[in-house]
Amino acid sequence: MKIHILTIFPDFFDAFLHTSIIKRGIEDGYIDIKTHQLRDYSSLKHNRIDDTPYGGGAGMLMMFPPFFEAIKTLKDDDTHIIMTSPQGKLFDQQKAIELAKKKHILILCGHYEGIDARVEQFVDEEISIGNYVLTGGEMPAMIIADAVSRLVPGVIHEESSETDSLQNGWLKYPQYTKPEQYEGYGVPEVLLSGHHQMIETWRKEQSVKRTIMKRPDLIKGIVLTDEEKKILQNVGKKDV
Amino acid sequence: MKIHILTIFPDFFDAFLHTSIIKRGIEDGYIDIKTHQLRDYSSLKHNRIDDTPYGGGAGMLMMFPPFFEAIKTLKDDDTHIIMTSPQGKLFDQQKAIELAKKKHILILCGHYEGIDARVEQFVDEEISIGNYVLTGGEMPAMIIADAVSRLVPGVIHEESSETDSLQNGWLKYPQYTKPEQYEGYGVPEVLLSGHHQMIETWRKEQSVKRTIMKRPDLIKGIVLTDEEKKILQNVGKKDV
Repeated sequence: MKIHILTIFPDFFDAFLHTSIIKRGIEDGYIDIKTHQLRDYSSLKHNRIDDTPYGGGAGMLMMFPPFFEAIKTLKDDDTHIIMTSPQGKLFDQQKAIELAKKKHILILCGHYEGIDARVEQFVDEEISIGNYVLTGGEMPAMIIADAVSRLVPGVIHEESSETDSLQNGWLKYPQYTKPEQYEGYGVPEVLLSGHHQMIETWRKEQSVKRTIMKRPDLIKGIVLTDEEKKILQNVGKKDV
Repeated sequence: MKIHILTIFPDFFDAFLHTSIIKRGIEDGYIDIKTHQLRDYSSLKHNRIDDTPYGGGAGMLMMFPPFFEAIKTLKDDDTHIIMTSPQGKLFDQQKAIELAKKKHILILCGHYEGIDARVEQFVDEEISIGNYVLTGGEMPAMIIADAVSRLVPGVIHEESSETDSLQNGWLKYPQYTKPEQYEGYGVPEVLLSGHHQMIETWRKEQSVKRTIMKRPDLIKGIVLTDEEKKILQNVGKKDV
C-alpha cells in the first residue's frame, strides 16, 4: 500500500519514517510512505505557495495552482485523496480499517489560515482527527498514516494487533511487569498465581470495570456476550 | 508555561520543536517545551525499560521504576501529569484551553503494549486524542503540546487565533486567494466586489451551510445568535 503526503514540511516526517514499526514496514516492503514537497509544484518566484485571502481576512492562504499541479502529477486511477481539515469527519478505527484497504492514499496537509477552497473539488474525503485546533496538517497526516499502516497485513504481528486496546471494543485490562515490588508498589497477587483461568477472569472483569469508569461512552458500541453481560451485572452490584 | 515530555524517542520531536509557530514560541520565551529520555531513569543494564507482562500476554510492557524515578525528579508542586492513553477522556479544544492555564505539564508517552499499571496512580489525567490505535504516545503528546501552545498568550497573534476554525463553534467559510482564474477554476464573484458588508454576509452564510453539511454534530454545542437563527432558517428553506 502507498501512503503519500503532500506538505511544505517534509522534514517533519523524518523521525516518524525512521522509528520502530513504520521503519520496518517500509524496509520490509509492506508499505510505501513518501512525502512530496508542495513548493516543487509552484511556478512562482522562490516557489511561493501562499497569498492573502480575497475579500480580506487575517493570515495567509495556500494557493490553488501548486495543489492542482501536484495532484495532476501524483494521482492515478487508484488514488484516494484525503485532506486533513477541521471540517472533515472525525477519524476513528473504523475509518482506519476502511483506508487500509485502499491501494494508494494521498494526504494533503494544510497550513497557515487554510487552503484555497478550489482544492476541495479534487478531494475524495476530508478527515479531522479531533475537535481541536492545530498548527497544520502534518500531525494529522502522521496520525492517519500510522493508524492505517498498522492495519496493513505484515506491518505488525497478528497477535500484537489483536490485543491492542479498543480493537475489540473494551479498554485493555491493567498490565504489570517486573519488578514485583518497587518502593512499596506491588503487583496484584492473582497475576503471580500462575492460574491461567483465574487470570483470564480477572482480566476480563478489569476490562469491563475500566471501561465503565473511564470511557462509559464506548460501551454503547459493543455487542455484549453472555459472559460480558454477567460481569456488567456483577460489577454494577458490587464495587463500581 | 512549561510542557515537558517523557519519551523513549526524544528525536521524534526534533522537527516539531524546530518548525514555525512552536519554534518562535520557544525562542521568544513564551513556552518551554522539552523532551526527557525515559531510559536515563533506568538502573538496568543497557538502560532497559521494558519486560514481559505478568500473567502472560503478547508483547512488552514499559516498566514502573523508570517512570517512578523520572516523575520524582521532574515533578514539582505545579506539575500536572498527563498520560496519553486510549483509556483517557477525549481531547478537545475545551481541554486545550484548560491545560493552557497550567504552569507545568508533564506528558508521559506510552509505547509497546502499554505501561505498568502502577504508573497510573501518579497521573493526574489520562487523555486520548481520538478513538484510533496508534504505535505510541509520541504523536498524541505532540498534538497536545501543539494545541495547548497555540493558546498560551504571545505564541500566536490574537487576530489569527480568533479566526481559527472551530474556535467560535462554526466551521470556517471557504477562502480563496490569487490567482483569480486557473485552468478554468475561478473565485466567487462576491469576494472580488470589494463590498465589505456583502462579503461578511456571504461568509456567515457559507459558515452555517458548511457546518450543516459537513459537521452537523457541531451545531448542538452552539448558542445561536438571532442572525444565525435566521440564516439557519433560510438555509433550511432553500438549498441545503
